[in-house]
Amino acid sequence: MPLKNDLILRAARGENVERPPVWLMRQAGRILPEYRAVRSKLSGFRELVATPELACEVTLQPVDLLGVDAAILFSDILVIPEAMGLPYEMKSGVGPIFPSVIRNEADYKKISITDPRQSLDYVMEAISLIKTKLENRVPLIGFAGAPWTIFCYMTEGSGSKTFSVARRMIMENPALAQRLLNDIAEMTADYLVAQVEAGVDMLQVFDSWAAVLGPEEYKKFALPGIITITERLKDSGVPLTLFAKGAHHALPDLAGLQCNTIGIDWTIDPREARKIVGEGKTLQGNLDPAKLYCSHDEVRNHTLSMLQAFGKGRHIANLGHGVYPDTDPEKVKTFIDTIQSYKYAENA
Amino acid sequence: MPLKNDLILRAARGENVERPPVWLMRQAGRILPEYRAVRSKLSGFRELVATPELACEVTLQPVDLLGVDAAILFSDILVIPEAMGLPYEMKSGVGPIFPSVIRNEADYKKISITDPRQSLDYVMEAISLIKTKLENRVPLIGFAGAPWTIFCYMTEGSGSKTFSVARRMIMENPALAQRLLNDIAEMTADYLVAQVEAGVDMLQVFDSWAAVLGPEEYKKFALPGIITITERLKDSGVPLTLFAKGAHHALPDLAGLQCNTIGIDWTIDPREARKIVGEGKTLQGNLDPAKLYCSHDEVRNHTLSMLQAFGKGRHIANLGHGVYPDTDPEKVKTFIDTIQSYKYAENA
Repeated sequence: MPLKNDLILRAARGENVERPPVWLMRQAGRILPEYRAVRSKLSGFRELVATPELACEVTLQPVDLLGVDAAILFSDILVIPEAMGLPYEMKSGVGPIFPSVIRNEADYKKISITDPRQSLDYVMEAISLIKTKLENRVPLIGFAGAPWTIFCYMTEGSGSKTFSVARRMIMENPALAQRLLNDIAEMTADYLVAQVEAGVDMLQVFDSWAAVLGPEEYKKFALPGIITITERLKDSGVPLTLFAKGAHHALPDLAGLQCNTIGIDWTIDPREARKIVGEGKTLQGNLDPAKLYCSHDEVRNHTLSMLQAFGKGRHIANLGHGVYPDTDPEKVKTFIDTIQSYKYAENA
Repeated sequence: MPLKNDLILRAARGENVERPPVWLMRQAGRILPEYRAVRSKLSGFRELVATPELACEVTLQPVDLLGVDAAILFSDILVIPEAMGLPYEMKSGVGPIFPSVIRNEADYKKISITDPRQSLDYVMEAISLIKTKLENRVPLIGFAGAPWTIFCYMTEGSGSKTFSVARRMIMENPALAQRLLNDIAEMTADYLVAQVEAGVDMLQVFDSWAAVLGPEEYKKFALPGIITITERLKDSGVPLTLFAKGAHHALPDLAGLQCNTIGIDWTIDPREARKIVGEGKTLQGNLDPAKLYCSHDEVRNHTLSMLQAFGKGRHIANLGHGVYPDTDPEKVKTFIDTIQSYKYAENA
């Protein structure tokens, strides 16, 4: 059965669309009381990620409650290190913590590339279940972290403002860093292919910590892993979005890769991004998530300004980063409604 | 008596220099065993900041031990909120914590602009003492946080990856945010003028959290406070450096202000920065601090590449951000030696 709303797929492919599609990064999560109700009954965040029925339930919530144009799989980018043999804990108010990390040859021997169909079977089950329950209302987006971002966590062992441990490793032992980055890239490419086989309609790769690297190191240590992924996915038939948060200098490189869409954050002007990226890709973003703290009228005005800055077509409307947990869901609805009421024909 | 080494002042003013001057952000601090020896005897970080003899001792250490071309006052940007009535604690492994914060009109009544000659008398005493002990060997750099960065801490109450509380306030209550930002700017301008009167030879303003704002909000909420400062300092006779970390989009705005030098981090190519900033300002930076984890040979090569990227003159060599605490001081010496052995005449 065809999708009832395939707007986001058409926008990603540069086909004709009547208005921009809209979804929000972190739309399935703490902004919704219905999510918090599910979450509060559980032992922890990871139970939610690892239980297909629960992951399915919270994935569908924003589709039912907010009316977004796409669902995104509820999961975590850190399932990849775990599937490679490096488990993590999610500490409330702190974030992810890895009890053991990879910093030398001996550590490196602890991890391996596994078959995601087995090691991450619960993700594949969640995808099947979500696809069934979605009943083709909107497409389902699968995702993974970019290899550099996953490398950051596997070496640093936690979040960090500078990721200076990860960056120390690429400086002190670039050969080992490259091997680890290659392994993560292969595992991630396998994982994304498996997600496509399980039924996702679209994919996004998040390079959340791209901005801690300078242009030279980004090209040397972050870009090759992304290229591994784009090459493996290019014939999958599924549109791919790349989002390197904060890495303004990465845009020209990303624009040259085999992907459909480039995500931008709110520090980059959409008109500038279009100049750099050219006409051949769709752009995604980029309202400052803090603008959803404004009044409803201001949210509407900021959203319209954003739409005008992106211009007609080749745009997937979103925030410039994940929605903040203390955002009023009614403001999110105003953001979504403004986009869904917009008509290119009247505003081009 | 004139300064024996005034290279950094000449570089800031665009005068003729034989080589670039060099200093390091956070040069006085944990990289030096001699610093850790002083620090370990104390109850906490703030005792070091508030005791002129101790602040003087650690300010001089990098001049004596590393041979940098400038000293920078050992202090903290958070003395300003404290002098306005909002004290902070420095928690080991966590960073600064403010027991009370400014989030509404009632909170705002708790703070006021004070005379820094009195409220921050210990800083002025430290400056006098340092100037005496420096014996005119090198210039002394004074500094303050930019108003937006100080506002972030006063509203958020701690460090943050997103400063979404601070950004919520500028969205929800822009009028109150502007008043607080104006007060911080006035207090900071007074403070920097007092530092000049006490004897500093040069000033730097750190906008450490500039990058969390989009271009529009940066112009509206961060830039006005910086302009208050540049206007008050422009006739002081003391060169001023502005450093907005991560805010690539702020460079054109900063380039239009009454300052001598613009600092750039390692994510910005020096040649790009020169194009944006023009020939009328000195640039400061920008080696990736993680590059000091490389071998001595690589540190030398990276440093030479950086010098060549900046070109001849109007450059103050530095890292792109503070030196990381676990950096080998010998690598710092290699960085400094490479710059101090460089001759523009031979490399232009």
